[in-house]
Amino acid sequence: MASGYSAGMTVQSPADPSDLRAELRDRHEQVLGDAAAALAARSFYQRYPDSPSPRVHGEGAAEKGLAAYESHLGRPFDLGDQPTTGESVGSEVSPYGPELGVTYPRLDVDAAMAAARDVMRGWRAAGPRTRAAVCVEIIDRLHARSFELAHAVMHTSGQPFVMAFQAGGPQAQDRALEAVVAALVEQERIPATARWEKPGKDAPLVMDKEYVCVPRGVALVIGCNTFPTWNAYPGLFASLATGNAVVVKPHPRAVLPLAITVQVCREVLAEAGFAPALVQLAAEGDGEGLAKELALHPDVAIIDYTGGPGFGGWLEREGAAHGKAVFTEKAGVNSIVLDSTDDLRGLLGNLAFSLTLYSGQMCTTPQNLYLPRTGLQTPDGPVSVEDLAARLGEAIGRLTGDDARAVELLGATVNEGVRSTAAGLGALAEEAGGEVVVESRAVEHPAYPEAVVRTPGVVRVDAAREDVYTRECFGPVALLIVTDSTEQSLAQFVDTVREHGAMTAAVYSTSEEVLAAAREASLDAGVALSENLTGQVFVNQTSAFSDFHGTGANPAANAAYTDAAFVAPRFRVVATRRHVS
Amino acid sequence: MASGYSAGMTVQSPADPSDLRAELRDRHEQVLGDAAAALAARSFYQRYPDSPSPRVHGEGAAEKGLAAYESHLGRPFDLGDQPTTGESVGSEVSPYGPELGVTYPRLDVDAAMAAARDVMRGWRAAGPRTRAAVCVEIIDRLHARSFELAHAVMHTSGQPFVMAFQAGGPQAQDRALEAVVAALVEQERIPATARWEKPGKDAPLVMDKEYVCVPRGVALVIGCNTFPTWNAYPGLFASLATGNAVVVKPHPRAVLPLAITVQVCREVLAEAGFAPALVQLAAEGDGEGLAKELALHPDVAIIDYTGGPGFGGWLEREGAAHGKAVFTEKAGVNSIVLDSTDDLRGLLGNLAFSLTLYSGQMCTTPQNLYLPRTGLQTPDGPVSVEDLAARLGEAIGRLTGDDARAVELLGATVNEGVRSTAAGLGALAEEAGGEVVVESRAVEHPAYPEAVVRTPGVVRVDAAREDVYTRECFGPVALLIVTDSTEQSLAQFVDTVREHGAMTAAVYSTSEEVLAAAREASLDAGVALSENLTGQVFVNQTSAFSDFHGTGANPAANAAYTDAAFVAPRFRVVATRRHVS
Repeated sequence: MASGYSAGMTVQSPADPSDLRAELRDRHEQVLGDAAAALAARSFYQRYPDSPSPRVHGEGAAEKGLAAYESHLGRPFDLGDQPTTGESVGSEVSPYGPELGVTYPRLDVDAAMAAARDVMRGWRAAGPRTRAAVCVEIIDRLHARSFELAHAVMHTSGQPFVMAFQAGGPQAQDRALEAVVAALVEQERIPATARWEKPGKDAPLVMDKEYVCVPRGVALVIGCNTFPTWNAYPGLFASLATGNAVVVKPHPRAVLPLAITVQVCREVLAEAGFAPALVQLAAEGDGEGLAKELALHPDVAIIDYTGGPGFGGWLEREGAAHGKAVFTEKAGVNSIVLDSTDDLRGLLGNLAFSLTLYSGQMCTTPQNLYLPRTGLQTPDGPVSVEDLAARLGEAIGRLTGDDARAVELLGATVNEGVRSTAAGLGALAEEAGGEVVVESRAVEHPAYPEAVVRTPGVVRVDAAREDVYTRECFGPVALLIVTDSTEQSLAQFVDTVREHGAMTAAVYSTSEEVLAAAREASLDAGVALSENLTGQVFVNQTSAFSDFHGTGANPAANAAYTDAAFVAPRFRVVATRRHVS
Repeated sequence: MASGYSAGMTVQSPADPSDLRAELRDRHEQVLGDAAAALAARSFYQRYPDSPSPRVHGEGAAEKGLAAYESHLGRPFDLGDQPTTGESVGSEVSPYGPELGVTYPRLDVDAAMAAARDVMRGWRAAGPRTRAAVCVEIIDRLHARSFELAHAVMHTSGQPFVMAFQAGGPQAQDRALEAVVAALVEQERIPATARWEKPGKDAPLVMDKEYVCVPRGVALVIGCNTFPTWNAYPGLFASLATGNAVVVKPHPRAVLPLAITVQVCREVLAEAGFAPALVQLAAEGDGEGLAKELALHPDVAIIDYTGGPGFGGWLEREGAAHGKAVFTEKAGVNSIVLDSTDDLRGLLGNLAFSLTLYSGQMCTTPQNLYLPRTGLQTPDGPVSVEDLAARLGEAIGRLTGDDARAVELLGATVNEGVRSTAAGLGALAEEAGGEVVVESRAVEHPAYPEAVVRTPGVVRVDAAREDVYTRECFGPVALLIVTDSTEQSLAQFVDTVREHGAMTAAVYSTSEEVLAAAREASLDAGVALSENLTGQVFVNQTSAFSDFHGTGANPAANAAYTDAAFVAPRFRVVATRRHVS
């Protein structure tokens, strides 16, 4: 007899913060409406400006953010009254060199789960709109700490600073808002009440009904090393907005950005009279395997995961086998089909940038470049495989020739795996019976000499060597795959994506027929397609509210940011009905 | 290299039936709109009148339906060019006695899966609205065969005729329509195209985007014995409307209703120029275990299942572990909390009917009746446990005293399991340390002497005997559980439903405080609650478009008819984007 249902028992919210709740609902009504409209139309929308310029954020914001970041270093991180075992964990080392020295209280898992379970009733009773407003307030406060978060992301992921600011701050915040809005829309599609009136012989049968969205349980968010905030926010906010309590388990080498995030969540929740235990941080030391323990905890009902396919596959199987809703983003072989172009310079610049950005360490960076052995068709005649490779190398060189400028795009390699992939270009070419056609250059970071920085390299392989190019080479390595024809390129593209997954795909062609075939191929492969990108939109970037990140239709990810399938299974509807007398 | 993507390849639909497709879109636009509005408001809506009266269906419709049913008996059933192994299966015996003697071609599974895979592209290309219109046309044609279906349902499930007509015909058809509409709404929430315009320094960045809903793969629908159509239609039509091909695997003792259904699907699909292989029947003999083989087939991406918790649990674990979306309805312990009433007669009549209908063989029939040992409070003072049991027995007796009338409510017991449960009332009481308070009476069926028909019996047990009342007793058996208080009743209700699941719950109370506590308890338990039903609405009946069937929030079912979570994961969205020059 765990629970006591005494007559007259209702869930009471603390009285004081109710004014703040009403105020938050008012304050954020406009943004929730605007964002919902954008999401429905999938048009451009951006709440959080992503330029780090002082014109946007105010003079001194950057300096204050850096100081705030530095104030965390070498210190215990404060998470309030989170239940802890009394121990501390924390061993973050920046890919740029410095040790962070931040320590985090180790979560007492059973106590944390019990707390999470207990506090969900008050959050459930608050209803979808209050929850959404509180979430927007959280995201706004995160936005105010964007510079601090940027440094935390930079020094855990190895991202260059501007990217860490943009992708780790405002763009992650917009993805968070997208998840909140998607969750709100989905819950509000269910009316709170309905009158049901069935015509009868004499009088109609009339019933009043109420519908309440109830959470699934405790949600677990497992963060990744490379995009600690951007990849964690959609799951975190989708679960929270649908009434679930959330336990955030960051990657042991990228804790700080999510620790700050959890701190902000708890602060806003408490102000609005909700229990901070609705969001808790489960930090761990490297190699402890806490994610597995948490994933199998009986209280955990939802799991969001970004990371490698090994553990992701295990989670999909075991999590699902235990009745949990599991949303994963793993990895794949992102592909570009090169057929023809009327803007060779634009193509090369765009592709070089996509390969260079963050040293190819995005889950969306292209890996497989399919090109017919007859070359790329242009108005000036075909560009041969060799020429194209050479020109791509030159384009990468233009972006990365100067070390000081190069590191602002490349960032630093995040781990030994990436470093050995980058260093093993020659061995890969030999194994593949191919050739290194663009060398990967080691770059000296002018400020952080310990950082390992490499420019992207390219290996040419034959289309027959599926064994080579169906593997993910995470990091600054791309494969130029020589096919018999664009038809073969498309067929190989579909087969490899179906089998091994992809987060992104692109095609370059001036032929409407080829583009139509590529679109059909992308539907068969189940991956989004970018066509003829030659300007300031890149295949590895998606825009919240308009572009889906992932599709869930191929093995790279079983979910997409943010479609209905990403939010609808996070809550259930419980109805009550009674006659109207 | 399975597939060839040649330039210029597009999916062509046959030219002739395109007129029919346009006509179907026009013809069914109104119903799709009306039904979508009802679903959004969760108000009363019924497309298919559920009275078997000749005033509704026309003179002779009943006779023609019976003749159509009889024409199937003792014959091979025609499923056109479905790939077959050449063998036949079929061993249906009516719970009323007669052997059906219908045989069905055994499906060649691999050939069927290959066919299903191949034909999905044309169905995908047709788009959500054409698919929905075709589905409505299928359901309309099923409606025209409602009498034929009613006899098929009656003689496979053992339902009484009127119920077989209503639940197996029009009500199942309305649930099918609900699934089609939910699927259409969900797909149309994604715009087909969008223009994305990001403000820039000089000129805006402008892109055109297209979004296509793509199916997950082949959907498997596993039917049950007791409600072969009603429980199969939501999954069948949700999957079909979202672009998937469907393989229908009926219960080996309830094939005919789904064989007729598949026949109608294939007929309409072919007329509209789509491949009949989009819907195929996988009949099997008793005990062959085909469901397992189909569920693990690599082409199967979606599984809908209704049936026992053993295989259902296996499917949830193994299906999910293999990356399939699994929707189940299994079983649970449906509960009623009895506290007080000002309409004792209405309560007894309503409850007696709920227990009697189809001999308690509905997944929604109440099993656990919680009553404080102080009895049920009424304006005339408390009714003691003993008195309430006696009066409930009398109310059941009024419904079932006359054999000829009784069988029109009770139908026939569907299998040996139910018969032994019904016959084992005394043993159950003894095991439980309780008492049989309402005897189960054997009824003679005037027309079908071989049918085993039993009235519902009730056993009194103490609240301490959780071991007894947390088991499902499928069939005409209810348990009157004596508690210390309504507070304990509610607590036990929550605990047993959380642990063992429930499809339905009800409360009787005149106290607003108790009702509020019961509502809160139903949210915690994750089960829909009916309050004070004393008239012509019964706890075991739900109304399409307004009531959810199941919640997915407790172990009885992981899905609900029909919420967004039931349709959204059946398709994915693939986007393409390009610059606007």
